[in-house]
Amino acid sequence: MRALIPFKKENAKSRLSAVLTQSEREEFVELMLLDVINTLNSANINQIDILSTSEYDSITNMNLNYLIDSADLNQGINNYLNMIKEPVLIIMADVPLVKVEHIENIISSKEDVVIVPGRGGGTNVLFIKNPDMFKVCYYGMSFKNHCSVVNNTCQSLRIYDSFLLSTDIDEPQDIVEILLHGHGHSFEYANNKFKLEAGRARLKLINI
Amino acid sequence: MRALIPFKKENAKSRLSAVLTQSEREEFVELMLLDVINTLNSANINQIDILSTSEYDSITNMNLNYLIDSADLNQGINNYLNMIKEPVLIIMADVPLVKVEHIENIISSKEDVVIVPGRGGGTNVLFIKNPDMFKVCYYGMSFKNHCSVVNNTCQSLRIYDSFLLSTDIDEPQDIVEILLHGHGHSFEYANNKFKLEAGRARLKLINI
Repeated sequence: MRALIPFKKENAKSRLSAVLTQSEREEFVELMLLDVINTLNSANINQIDILSTSEYDSITNMNLNYLIDSADLNQGINNYLNMIKEPVLIIMADVPLVKVEHIENIISSKEDVVIVPGRGGGTNVLFIKNPDMFKVCYYGMSFKNHCSVVNNTCQSLRIYDSFLLSTDIDEPQDIVEILLHGHGHSFEYANNKFKLEAGRARLKLINI
Repeated sequence: MRALIPFKKENAKSRLSAVLTQSEREEFVELMLLDVINTLNSANINQIDILSTSEYDSITNMNLNYLIDSADLNQGINNYLNMIKEPVLIIMADVPLVKVEHIENIISSKEDVVIVPGRGGGTNVLFIKNPDMFKVCYYGMSFKNHCSVVNNTCQSLRIYDSFLLSTDIDEPQDIVEILLHGHGHSFEYANNKFKLEAGRARLKLINI
């Protein structure tokens, strides 16, 4: 099996602009990607493909396969699924709370497809045993889209319920979860820049 | 074992004011509570105590024990823990995505304490085998507080990672998850009042 991580560095994570500059955001997404890669490696997944639309997005000194496809995310991944002939774990670069147990648990599933929902209708991880029977459809209601793909192709489905994996880092409030539950490079980065403010409601992120 | 659900109906969920009136919010929290109670009953938990600060908060026609304690949430629960002599599952009334499997899984844990983190540092479910060895400390960084209580009393701890249980319904955006992943009364209520709007980011809630 292999893993695919779609990755965009250039001006990434615009919804974090309120708390990080463009160059900080570009540094931060690379650190989150490194945490995801390290977790995959620790789970003995070493065939890792990084899908980008631009050469600019490549990070150096890592044993990774770079695929550049200028098509949009969905088309790029579907081109990839047409090409490979083995099970694939598609994991987003912005889920740095991922742990080895999650990966081991997901890839040992007996079902044909595992979908890990993200907050707000997204799909943060997708494990596909039969890539020729799947087309991705990210953005918007992708969780529902992907459930439909599984049902329409009569495959078996596991929905994997994880708070840590549901947490993709898109908005300042999401960084709170890195400070509380994170590890690795992304935790270190966030911990140097932010602290938490407590009240009676959810914790808020504030700059140090 | 027993379950405790702290519950407040009167002017509850003020952070939902942007999308629900006071009487709608009071109706909605009661429906979420009913979903939690029904799930507990389906998991064969029938000793359910409802802790409120006011008689107003009681709901009728249910086989529940009402405890009225005018102290604040923490003091009220700690008074209760001093009183009981058996394991207790403390579950918030605003986690209507809870399923029977969650409850069965949590209460069959071998550890002394199970903590289910909520978004933003909260504690949505707490399973305590030795109530005389625990004091709750909700609000603010309660997840960290409760981990410290376990460590300081040399008890064993399981942190239960669930997206569905991490979703307490505090803000309009949380209702998106009820529409996507919910069931029961709260799903029906939300589904009659709201729909989802898709873009490239997380789904947004809009009034029907």
